[in-house]
Amino acid sequence: MALDADATLGEAGEFGLISQLVAQLGEALTDDEHVLVGPGDDAAVLRVKHGHVVVSTDLMVEGRHFRRDWASAEDVGHRAAAQNLSDINAMGGTARHLTIGLAAPADLPVQWALDFARGFAQECASVGATVVGGDTTRADEIVIAVTVLGECTVSPVLRSGARPGDVLALTGRQGWAAGGLAVLGRGFRSPRVLVEAYRRPEPPYAAGKEAAEAGATSLIDVSDGLLAEAAHLAEASGVAIDVRRDAFDVPEPLVAVGAALGADPMQFILGGGDDHALLATFPDTASVPAGWQVVGEVRDGEGVTVDGSEYDGPTGWTHF
Amino acid sequence: MALDADATLGEAGEFGLISQLVAQLGEALTDDEHVLVGPGDDAAVLRVKHGHVVVSTDLMVEGRHFRRDWASAEDVGHRAAAQNLSDINAMGGTARHLTIGLAAPADLPVQWALDFARGFAQECASVGATVVGGDTTRADEIVIAVTVLGECTVSPVLRSGARPGDVLALTGRQGWAAGGLAVLGRGFRSPRVLVEAYRRPEPPYAAGKEAAEAGATSLIDVSDGLLAEAAHLAEASGVAIDVRRDAFDVPEPLVAVGAALGADPMQFILGGGDDHALLATFPDTASVPAGWQVVGEVRDGEGVTVDGSEYDGPTGWTHF
Repeated sequence: MALDADATLGEAGEFGLISQLVAQLGEALTDDEHVLVGPGDDAAVLRVKHGHVVVSTDLMVEGRHFRRDWASAEDVGHRAAAQNLSDINAMGGTARHLTIGLAAPADLPVQWALDFARGFAQECASVGATVVGGDTTRADEIVIAVTVLGECTVSPVLRSGARPGDVLALTGRQGWAAGGLAVLGRGFRSPRVLVEAYRRPEPPYAAGKEAAEAGATSLIDVSDGLLAEAAHLAEASGVAIDVRRDAFDVPEPLVAVGAALGADPMQFILGGGDDHALLATFPDTASVPAGWQVVGEVRDGEGVTVDGSEYDGPTGWTHF
Repeated sequence: MALDADATLGEAGEFGLISQLVAQLGEALTDDEHVLVGPGDDAAVLRVKHGHVVVSTDLMVEGRHFRRDWASAEDVGHRAAAQNLSDINAMGGTARHLTIGLAAPADLPVQWALDFARGFAQECASVGATVVGGDTTRADEIVIAVTVLGECTVSPVLRSGARPGDVLALTGRQGWAAGGLAVLGRGFRSPRVLVEAYRRPEPPYAAGKEAAEAGATSLIDVSDGLLAEAAHLAEASGVAIDVRRDAFDVPEPLVAVGAALGADPMQFILGGGDDHALLATFPDTASVPAGWQVVGEVRDGEGVTVDGSEYDGPTGWTHF
C-alpha cells in the first residue's frame, strides 16, 4: 500500500505506518543471518551465537531529550540509536539487534517518522546491528523507546570493578555535544562542528570491546556528564575518583563557545553528556589502549574530586 | 536511601526512584540463574540456554491504553506485563526477561510507580520471568514501554502458516475485558467479574507452547480484537477465514452487559481485545488440544467472514 508521505500519522493509521517503517528498516534484515523471524509477527526470533545476551533500554522524550527545531528527524534517529548502541559498547559488547517503540501525536507528519527510521537504521547499520521489531501508538508528545540486544565475546566490564591505584581513561569526543546544545539553546547554529556533534554523536563504537580485551576494570559511557558518570563508577566500585583538569585539551570550538557565552569551556567537558564517550579504569598506564587518554586516578575513599577538590560546577543531567 | 512514598517523582529524582524500583523488582532476580548482571549497570547480561531468543516490544499510553481512575497502579502493572508476556505466548515460546521504560509526569506520586512495579513483577513471576533493566524519564503523560525476551524450545509458530482446510481454534476468555471496558466507559463498576477481567487479564500462558507442540499451523494473541487478529492470520497466510457465531457460548455477565447497554454481546466477543486469548489454526479437529474451542475454519481466498458473510460490527482497535 503506497502511503502519502505528506499525510499525518492519524491519516495513515497504524498499519499503514508500520508497513512503511518496516520497508524503511527492513533492507538490512535480509542480510542478517541471525534474524530467523523479523518484524511483522508477534515477536522476532533471533539466533544467539555466543550464549550471552546483553540488553539495555532507553527512553527519549520530545522537548526533553530532543527538539524538532534543533535537529532533523534523521538526526533524532541517529541519536536515539547511538545512545542505545553506546550502552552495549559500555559493557564491552557488540550490539546486534534493536526494537523501537514510537509514541507520537496523530498530527505528526508521516515523513518525520520515516526520516527518523532511516536515520535510526543508518546508525545501526554502521555497527552491523539491525532493527527486528517495534510498536507505534498515539500520544500527546513524541516518546521513543529503544531496546538493544548485544553479545559479549569477552566477560562484560561492569561499573563496579575499579580499584584504588587504577588509572581513569577516556576515549571519544567529550564536551562537543554539550557545547552544541548550549549554542542551540541561545538560538545560534554555529560553531557548526559542535551543533553537528550534538545532532549526530559519534560514539567510539570499537573502543568498548577493546577496553575489555585490554583488561579494563570498570567501564561506562558518558551520557549524563563526565563527572556524573565518574561518580557512578566510584559508587558502584566503592572507591574515590579524582579527575585532572589539565589532562584535557580544550578543543578550539569549545574555547570559542565559552568566550561567546561567557562560560568556562571546561564546564562542557566535565559536565556534558550526549557525546557517548567511554570512561574506563585500567590497572595501570601501560594497559591503557592507544586512543585513550588518562584523565585521572582511582583512590581510596568515596566520591569524585577535580584536582583533589570538590567541584562546584554542573556535573550532569537530571531526569526528573 | 529511604524515599517518602508520598513524594512525587519530581521530588524523589530519577536515581531515588530507580533504587526503589529495583528493590521492588529485584527480589525474583536473586533466584534467576540466567541473569548474570541485573539492573544497575549499562546493560543487563543474560545467559541464553537454547540459542533462540524471541523478542517483542509494546507501548502503553495513559488515557489511551489505561486510565488511572479505571484501574489501580498495580492493575496497570499486571496488564502491561500480561500484554507483553502474551506476545511470547503467541509465538509458542516461554517468556524469560523483561525491560521497562517508564516516562511519567514529575507530579506522579512515587507510590503509583512502586505499585505499578509491584503488579508488573507479580505478573512476570507468575510465568517465571524477571525484570532485568529499565529506564525512567519525565514526560507530560505516562508512557510505559516494555520489551520482553523469551525462548522457544520448539519452532516458533508464525502468523503465516494457516492453510485452507485448517480449523480455527481459540483458548482463554474472550470478550470479558471488552465488556469490562464498556461498563467502565459508562461510569459503572459492575459486573465486577468483567471489570476485573479488564483490569487484570488472565492470558492462557501455558497454551502457546502447547499449541506449538500440537502442531498449530499459525498462532496469534487476541489483543486488538478477535476478527482483527483473524484478519492478520488470513493476510499473513494468504487465506480466508470464516468465524462461526454459534461456536461461542456467550457468558452470562456479557449477556447482562449487552442487555444493560443495549448492545449485542457478540460484539464484545468478535471485536474485543485485551483478554489476550490465543487464536490458532490446526491441521484438523483431532489435533486441537483440550481446552481449545473450534470457532471457525480456513478457506481459499482472502479476508475474514462471520457465518460466511461480511461482518459489519466493530472488528478491533485502531492505534492512530
